[in-house]
Amino acid sequence: MSEMSAPLYLEDLSPGMHFVNGPVAVTAEDIKRFASEFDPQPFHLDEQAGAESFFKGLAASGWHTAALTMRLMVTGGMPLAAGYIGAGGEVTWTKPVYAGDTLTVRVEVREVKPSGSRPDRGFALLRCETRNQRDEIVQVLQARVMVPRRQVP
Amino acid sequence: MSEMSAPLYLEDLSPGMHFVNGPVAVTAEDIKRFASEFDPQPFHLDEQAGAESFFKGLAASGWHTAALTMRLMVTGGMPLAAGYIGAGGEVTWTKPVYAGDTLTVRVEVREVKPSGSRPDRGFALLRCETRNQRDEIVQVLQARVMVPRRQVP
Repeated sequence: MSEMSAPLYLEDLSPGMHFVNGPVAVTAEDIKRFASEFDPQPFHLDEQAGAESFFKGLAASGWHTAALTMRLMVTGGMPLAAGYIGAGGEVTWTKPVYAGDTLTVRVEVREVKPSGSRPDRGFALLRCETRNQRDEIVQVLQARVMVPRRQVP
Repeated sequence: MSEMSAPLYLEDLSPGMHFVNGPVAVTAEDIKRFASEFDPQPFHLDEQAGAESFFKGLAASGWHTAALTMRLMVTGGMPLAAGYIGAGGEVTWTKPVYAGDTLTVRVEVREVKPSGSRPDRGFALLRCETRNQRDEIVQVLQARVMVPRRQVP
């Protein structure tokens, strides 16, 4: 897509707009540090425990993948006028993220709609696919973000 | 609910089972540290920017709230036999989390069903409500977790 350096309002967004950001590397140390604070389960904390688990390796917490995805969204090429303020979303973890993986995110606008109750804003539905270095999708996030209108009707 | 110290299998879970865990405190320093790594937007990084934003105060990233919720889930009173391995979920942020808030999580089993394709496992749908110290719900997470069966039929 074309460059989007100016802050974007609801009127500027349309389905199909997209950007790609990354890669970001995920190290074993990153995985263990995140997990020790937020998801202290053996398969996220220790190589051996990871290898013996469902994951067959030291795997990142899904919330770590989600948080890294957010970093790539926020620092990507589509600056929203009020920032990325999420109302919520649906996340699916399709494959584990392992130590040594590098992640890239593709964010696409899927829907844009004005708020039914607040004329100064609307919502955009974003589909955010997070892929590893083998181009495998590791996470799909459908996020609803609040976006201000430039002109209140 | 009664004490649940032994690892739980799919057969042990039933709708209505629940536990509460917390509180955990969220400091301004925690909010800024998480945000600087994963969600570097001004309203998560600086009190003044937060006060001037949609949030009207320094607010935690939604992913920070989700990660803290995971910590409370994992360290709560319902040890699952293979741990908390999430297939995904739907998250809604209903109110901001501010510096100084303390969060508590209530996790309830809503559905339990065997996998259609893998006889050794099934899924549980968990409703996880995260509340602040004023008993306001700040996040609702409906999480799908994979749970092994004790006996393969």
